[in-house]
Amino acid sequence: MIKQLSITTPDQGLHEITTHIDQAIGESGTSIGLCTVFLQHTSASLLIQENADPAVRHDLQTWMNRLVRIDDPLYTHVNEGPDDMPSHIKSMLTSNSLTIPVVNSRLALGTWQGVFIWEHRHGVKHRNIVIHITE
Amino acid sequence: MIKQLSITTPDQGLHEITTHIDQAIGESGTSIGLCTVFLQHTSASLLIQENADPAVRHDLQTWMNRLVRIDDPLYTHVNEGPDDMPSHIKSMLTSNSLTIPVVNSRLALGTWQGVFIWEHRHGVKHRNIVIHITE
Amino acid sequence: MIKQLSITTPDQGLHEITTHIDQAIGESGTSIGLCTVFLQHTSASLLIQENADPAVRHDLQTWMNRLVRIDDPLYTHVNEGPDDMPSHIKSMLTSNSLTIPVVNSRLALGTWQGVFIWEHRHGVKHRNIVIHITE
Repeated sequence: MIKQLSITTPDQGLHEITTHIDQAIGESGTSIGLCTVFLQHTSASLLIQENADPAVRHDLQTWMNRLVRIDDPLYTHVNEGPDDMPSHIKSMLTSNSLTIPVVNSRLALGTWQGVFIWEHRHGVKHRNIVIHITE
Repeated sequence: MIKQLSITTPDQGLHEITTHIDQAIGESGTSIGLCTVFLQHTSASLLIQENADPAVRHDLQTWMNRLVRIDDPLYTHVNEGPDDMPSHIKSMLTSNSLTIPVVNSRLALGTWQGVFIWEHRHGVKHRNIVIHITE
Repeated sequence: MIKQLSITTPDQGLHEITTHIDQAIGESGTSIGLCTVFLQHTSASLLIQENADPAVRHDLQTWMNRLVRIDDPLYTHVNEGPDDMPSHIKSMLTSNSLTIPVVNSRLALGTWQGVFIWEHRHGVKHRNIVIHITE
């Protein structure tokens, strides 16, 4: 089964989408199987990370912003705004595809894991996700 | 087929699990197909890397430890020990899910490739892995 | 369906292989499904990135070359040439496996996305790719 989702991200940061994915699995009727989540963009990422202490997400963001600077004179791709090239680099260092087993009609995540869309750009963005679920 | 494994990692470092995965494929009876290996943690990673010269793993570890410092004053998530937040960052820079084709009842790895669990924390840890195998 | 491809990369850089993958999907007769692309090497990567402005690929390469230096005294794995250990690190920071949904008999990529093999070594190399396609 294929399902397409459109997610609105309010600003740069990690936004959890675990319940959206589990809902799609429920609709598919799959109890044991495999779920692939694919992001159709290269200036945002998909990430599985801890969803307990919000300080983890805060530190991931500040560490990444220090490694991939917005004002780096190295960039030659500057015509889409100062936050575009750093967003491509952050996407390159993470992923735009996740593949996760399904057990008991849900993602087989660990106790502290959540699925996040990591918006790297500033301001409101609309992001398209394609979900594939199979047994 | 879904199989769950528990791996004990003795300390920080790359620990090869290729034979564990190939054994699960053998048990599934799948000769041609797809294998997904998923780690239910966010302070360790799964990685495919060279399994020939151990100096490669040594250099991956020392390079990563220099990029992601244990004593970085940036961290605000410090209540789980000084090696926890750097472990989340190392997990973010690598992966906790691998999807690999199966050919001849084994992972279709290249000659020099092995599948590793990369433990980022110090001390003995118990890590849960979920394997999905399909044709 | 499994298909094996051999790609010759002319030198370090991002080389697009989207049409090779879509051709394999066409041969498989799959209209809706899942495609996994797997690279049997650990000194090159697979990456989904923007295929519009070539300046994006240029900046990804120069940023990565600055982060992962060819002349780093940290390296102890030096017997395969000065560009080998940095190539393993670049592979570790990116991926050698991509899983992408198939819609309308093609990869369900976003408007600006392409699939690239990222050659990290210098000089001509021959790289093996295994493609798995299922419904």
